[in-house]
Parts: sequence; structure tokens; C-alpha cells
Amino acid sequence: MDLKPTKPLSGFIELLPAQQRCFDECAGRMLRVLRTAGFSNLDLPAIERAEVLTDKDNWDEIETQMFLFQKGDTKMGLRYDGTVGLSRYVAGHLNDLVFPFRASQFSKRYRGERAQRGRYREFYQMDLDILGIGALSTNYDAEIIAVIQRALDSVHEFIGDNVVHVGSRPFWDALFDYLGLDCEQKKNAFILIDKKDKMGDEDFSEGLRDTLGDEKKENEIKSVFTDGYLRFVGKSDKLDSAINELTDFMKTLDAFGVKNAEIDLSIARGLAYYTGLVFEFKLPAHPELGTAAGGGRYADLAEKFSKTKIIGVGAAIGFSRIFVALMEMGRIDLAPFSHPVDAAVLIMGADNVWYAMRVVDALQNAGIAAVPYLDADKKFKNQIEYADKINAKYSVIIGEDEVKNQCLAVKNMESGDQQNLSLESAIELLKSA
Amino acid sequence: MDLKPTKPLSGFIELLPAQQRCFDECAGRMLRVLRTAGFSNLDLPAIERAEVLTDKDNWDEIETQMFLFQKGDTKMGLRYDGTVGLSRYVAGHLNDLVFPFRASQFSKRYRGERAQRGRYREFYQMDLDILGIGALSTNYDAEIIAVIQRALDSVHEFIGDNVVHVGSRPFWDALFDYLGLDCEQKKNAFILIDKKDKMGDEDFSEGLRDTLGDEKKENEIKSVFTDGYLRFVGKSDKLDSAINELTDFMKTLDAFGVKNAEIDLSIARGLAYYTGLVFEFKLPAHPELGTAAGGGRYADLAEKFSKTKIIGVGAAIGFSRIFVALMEMGRIDLAPFSHPVDAAVLIMGADNVWYAMRVVDALQNAGIAAVPYLDADKKFKNQIEYADKINAKYSVIIGEDEVKNQCLAVKNMESGDQQNLSLESAIELLKSA
Repeated sequence: MDLKPTKPLSGFIELLPAQQRCFDECAGRMLRVLRTAGFSNLDLPAIERAEVLTDKDNWDEIETQMFLFQKGDTKMGLRYDGTVGLSRYVAGHLNDLVFPFRASQFSKRYRGERAQRGRYREFYQMDLDILGIGALSTNYDAEIIAVIQRALDSVHEFIGDNVVHVGSRPFWDALFDYLGLDCEQKKNAFILIDKKDKMGDEDFSEGLRDTLGDEKKENEIKSVFTDGYLRFVGKSDKLDSAINELTDFMKTLDAFGVKNAEIDLSIARGLAYYTGLVFEFKLPAHPELGTAAGGGRYADLAEKFSKTKIIGVGAAIGFSRIFVALMEMGRIDLAPFSHPVDAAVLIMGADNVWYAMRVVDALQNAGIAAVPYLDADKKFKNQIEYADKINAKYSVIIGEDEVKNQCLAVKNMESGDQQNLSLESAIELLKSA
Repeated sequence: MDLKPTKPLSGFIELLPAQQRCFDECAGRMLRVLRTAGFSNLDLPAIERAEVLTDKDNWDEIETQMFLFQKGDTKMGLRYDGTVGLSRYVAGHLNDLVFPFRASQFSKRYRGERAQRGRYREFYQMDLDILGIGALSTNYDAEIIAVIQRALDSVHEFIGDNVVHVGSRPFWDALFDYLGLDCEQKKNAFILIDKKDKMGDEDFSEGLRDTLGDEKKENEIKSVFTDGYLRFVGKSDKLDSAINELTDFMKTLDAFGVKNAEIDLSIARGLAYYTGLVFEFKLPAHPELGTAAGGGRYADLAEKFSKTKIIGVGAAIGFSRIFVALMEMGRIDLAPFSHPVDAAVLIMGADNVWYAMRVVDALQNAGIAAVPYLDADKKFKNQIEYADKINAKYSVIIGEDEVKNQCLAVKNMESGDQQNLSLESAIELLKSA
């Protein structure tokens, strides 16, 4: 019989144990930041009704983008982001939650498209959202940015510095109005701005020319990126208000202790539901990763689910995108994660298993990661080889003598030093490992 | 426009924040036990090729049991357990892993059938497996049981005591041989034994009679449950060997510090891949939950994926089955989880936000969960109401005076006591909260 394939499906991530320990360590640190910042973890279903996932009904197209299936009469599919489930959840629990409500989600997301280089079909994102009923101060936008920065700082040794770029959708709305663009032109110009960094200056200019058919307007828009936005101060009330919001916000970020923040009006966050300030985090040491986290303010989170207006600011951290990519590129030193345990407990002779298990128990109770080698009839050579292969920091060797004397032979696997210790002294030594 | 439904699909779990905090606390404690026991966490893809998920090719039937979909020419689906992915992973990484290899998985599993009462279509299980190449001492079976007991003991305050019932498949094989059953009779008798507890004595007898057509054989099998297995000592070498293995194993469990273990030959673990000792954990305080965890030994984990013989012992803890069920039945006191934060920081006046954010920062750095109320223009009454509603243990109140004097007004939300404290003293107080 043919053997089945052992590789995961393309676009699916599979880590080795040391990589997984690194991944878990980074997730743990960042999640602790979110917990002390008062974000409530939500672990929502990965499967939603198709009508929750999308408003479209061109199933053939949607099916290429998502994982969809049908059970009985119900079409359903795997979530592609955290926002769609959050909207449904919050609308369904308006009376169970206290607003402003801080929600976080660390969960797998799914994209049905064919996998491309660097694009996963199953990946983790870490979402943060702060939601208010009817109104929400932009101070909360600053809080989200500050919390994301704390979270990224907690893994600084792996990813280096982070910077945050802040854009404004109201600024562009105001400028487009001021320039007298029609609806279609606004939409197209916005798409071009969103893609500007990827398309290069020449294509950007050409795109604007095609859309606007007006060199003056084209130049006004381009001037934002060359001469800055301040030349539009005083041009219209709407422009002034957008510019004031943005410059005030930068002061708030400073008051919130956010470092490395700058205004960057090329940040547009696509055609998504954002309506206010938008932002993206980048990692200067890893420009090839692109955006590490991004988000912004939306005017009505759950309008499809509830008549109550839920205003919010939200962001997603591309967790797999950052950490899996860096590990795959060999940019994270995995040496600190190569030790699954502090101690391998080696047992010379089946009669001594009972004593060894008491030692294992005592070590684990003291928080020391320890595993016994339970094929107690195997030779010392085989057993110490195992301790060496799993990269245990210490071996604790138990034979007849050790049981008789109620002591342990403790071997430092790196230096080779071995000493006889009482259980208490061994625990002390291993705890400092 | 009609609003979309806010309820999750039937059979999918959705927890409120306090329930989620309880769920996360229990998961965290149990996972720490697995880590100190040296189990490597594996976070495998939730989606596998259909050919990996099943050997069958009657797709219509399989489709009712699983979530399946097709992308291009590839049929794929959501995993229904942890073993199928583990087999593939281990076979694909034989040279990357050190054996005996301890693996754990805490992940969502999916069942496509229509949801029934108490059966989820998306649920968490916590898997433990210890794998060896070619051979593996039954000491590892005892280790798995000991580790599961440690994990369940770590959440004793929520679930109470646990007991473990140990059965033996070799015993039944040996008894069936001794009684001269044919292949079909063996299979049917085994199914009946597996279902005995659910079907009742009368149906069990009738089933055996139909299968065996022999009253003497029927009575011999029934006598195991009434008179015990020891009357079969000496009847055949195979029976002796199975009985010795089982009784020796109970001594090993004792040496491993396992409490509340008993032999129970009605434990059969269905028709799964188990070939040796099998076991199930029950929670005496919650008989309605049935089996809390179960597992056993298998002879060749990855025979479909590799020619290398991987022997293992594995178990799954029904994590959602236990904790979600107990929370839904109101059998877990959620009061300790009703506090998302230790401190709500209330800010009287927008000018004081910058100082308040320094305080929030300092509190969070000290590991104190703290949230600012950032609509700083809201009245004190509204702000303290928010602190009350979110069940904050303390409010830290910051106004003009506090900024001027670099101090904090700290209010105990339960007693109503308020005191003026320096930041350092406030941190000390809140840390002990």
C-alpha cells in the first residue's frame, strides 16, 4: 500500500518543537501585556454562517477566497479575520458587556486562496479592539497604539524596534472634497494612495492622471507626499478639522508614552471599514515583513447585526506573519528554545523507578521541567545519550547507591561536571538553571 | 435591511468574558503541568488532506461526519481529533525528533454531525502522547496517567477528585481465544463490552447470546464483571500474561504516585487503534460528564505514513467537555473571574490624561491589570459607575490635586474606603489585591 503524504498542505504552518517553544514564548509575553492592559480574551468559533462572513452572494468567487461548506441548508465557512466574529458577538451580548469594552482575540484565521510565497492559508493574528456605544474618545485610539507597542516591546529581543505610522482617512476625504472629485474619482484615488508604496512614483502619477484627467489636481495630491499636508491648512474647514485631529493625536500619543510615531498619509488601510485615524506598525530591522500590525477607527462595527451604533478602534497584529516568517528566515536565534527540559532523570535498573518518580515529582512541583527515562534496563550510555540529544541542561542519575543514600548524582550536561547532592540542593541548583 | 443573526451556529461554543477567564485559567494551569512534565506543545494545522483524515472513500457518508471542502483537485477537511495530525507530523519529522518523544496538543477539533445536546461541533481537547521507535516500556503508560492526574489535580477546586479506571485489550483477546470465538464473534463481543455501561445488563446478555449462541461462553464473559478476572489465572499462557501485565501495571501506577486507580475491564475505548492497556478518567463529583479523559497504548501510530514502527501511548482530555459543560450547568463559581482588572484609573479632566497614563504604565509594569477611563470629560459619577460595572477591585482617581501633589486617591470598590497614596504605596496595595 502506498504511504500517505507527510507534508502539511501548502500554505499551512508546521513548526518543530524548538520553533513552537519560541512561538509560544512570544505569544505568552504579548498576551500578558494585553491581560494587564485589561483586554478580555475572546475565543470565538472559527466557523461562521456564510451570511455572517460576507454580504456578497456570488458564491463561485467567494468560494475561491474562503473555506466554505454546506451542512443541511446552512452555508458556512472558516473566518478570515477576527472582526466579523467580534461584530456578531458584541451585537449579541450588548447587555452582557460593559462599554468601553476592551476585547482581544488570538486565534487562527483562514484564507482559501492558493498559497503564495509568504502568504499562509492558516495563520494567527492577535486582535485588539476597544468599543463604545455611540461615542468613543480618540484617546482610545492612542491607547490601542500604546498597548500594541508594549506588546511588541515585550518581544524586542526577537524583532527589534518598532515604529508606528499614523494616517488619516478624514484628511483624504476633506482634500478630495476640496479638489472637487466625484465619487468614482475619490474611490479610485484612494485605492492608488493605498497602493502607492507598492506601485512606485511613476505608476502612481499615471494612475492619478487616468482617474482625474486634471494635472493640477494630480499635483495637489502628489504634493502631500513631497511638501507635506500643512500647506492645506486653512483651505477648508473640513481640511482644518482633519489636520487638527491628526496633529492633536500625535501629542496624545506622546502623552501616552508612545515612541517612534510619525504622520504618514500614505497609510490608508485599503478599502476596509475604517473611517478615522489609521495606523501601521513596521519593524525597521525587518522591512521585508511589511506591516507588522495595523488598524484604525471604524464608525459602526455591528451595523449588520444591531441597530445600536458601536463605535470602535481596532487593530490586528500579524503574529504568524512576524514570528513564523522570522523563524523560517533564520532571523531568530532558537538556541534558548532548544531545551525542552531542565533535567533528564536517568534510572539505572527497574527497581529504582519508584524512587526516581518521587524525584521527578519533587522537581516538577518546584517548577523544574523534568522527564524520566523509563526504559530503566537500558545501559547508562544510551540513557545519557538521550539526555544529550534532548538538550537537557542537567542529568539526574539514580541507581542503587543513590536510592540507598537518598541522594542524587547531578551532571551538568554542558560542562560535564557531576556532583552528589541531596534532593533539596539539587532543586536549588536546577531552579537557577 | 434585515439584521443578520447574532447567535453562533448550533454546536459552537461562545463564552462570556468571565467564563473565558475561567476557561483560560484552567487551561493555563493544566498546560503548565504538561510543560514541567517535558511535553512539547505541537500546534498543528486544523486542516488536513481528506486522505490523511480517513481511509474510507464513501464521501457522502464521510461528509456528514466531517467538515470537508475541495480546493482545486484537493479534497481537505477539518481534523476531528489530534492523533491523525500527530501521526503525519511524526512520520514526516522522524529525524527532527528525539524518542521517546513527549507531545501535547491543546487545540480545537471539529465534528460535522448535527449538534446534539452536550455534543459540540467545535471543541478543545488536550492530547498527550509518548512515542517510541520500535519499543516503549509500559512505564510510559503509567507516566501519561500520572501526568493527566497532575493536570486534573491542578484544577481540583473546579472539578473535584478524579479516578482512573484501567482496562486491558490483551485480556479480552486472550479470553476470546480461550473461549474459541471466531473473528466476527470477537469483534461483536468487544463492541458489546464497550457499550455495556450504556446498554444495561439485560441488553448486554441478550447481545452476547445473539452473537455467541452459547450460554456457557456468555456466562464466562459475564463472570468477568461479577466474579472478577482472577478466576482466569492459569487458564492459558496468553491470559496469564495479560493478567500479569495488568496487575503489575497497577503496582507501577502506585509507584508513580497515582491515586484512585482501579482495574475496570469494562473500559474498552471503542474500536479505535488501541492494542494494549486502556484507561479512562472519571470525575466522581460529576458523573453526568461521563469520561473526562481517556487513552491507551497503540502498536503502530503512523503505519499509514511511514514504514518505521512508532509505538505509543496517548490520551485526550475532554477539555471543553469538562469545563464548558460545568460552566453551562452553573457548577463552577465564576465570582473569582468577574474582575477583568485590579484597577480602573479614573481621570477628572482632559489635562490630566498624560499623568494618568504614566500611572497606568507604572501599574501595568508592576503586573497590575489596570485600565484608564479615557472619556476624561465625563462626570465622576459616570466614571465611578464604570469602575463598579466592570467589577474593578480598586479605583485610582486622578484629578488636578493629585497631579499637583503627585499622589493618587485609591478607592476600595468593595468597602468604599478611600485613601491618598504615593504611586509606590498604591502599587504595593494593589499588588496584594
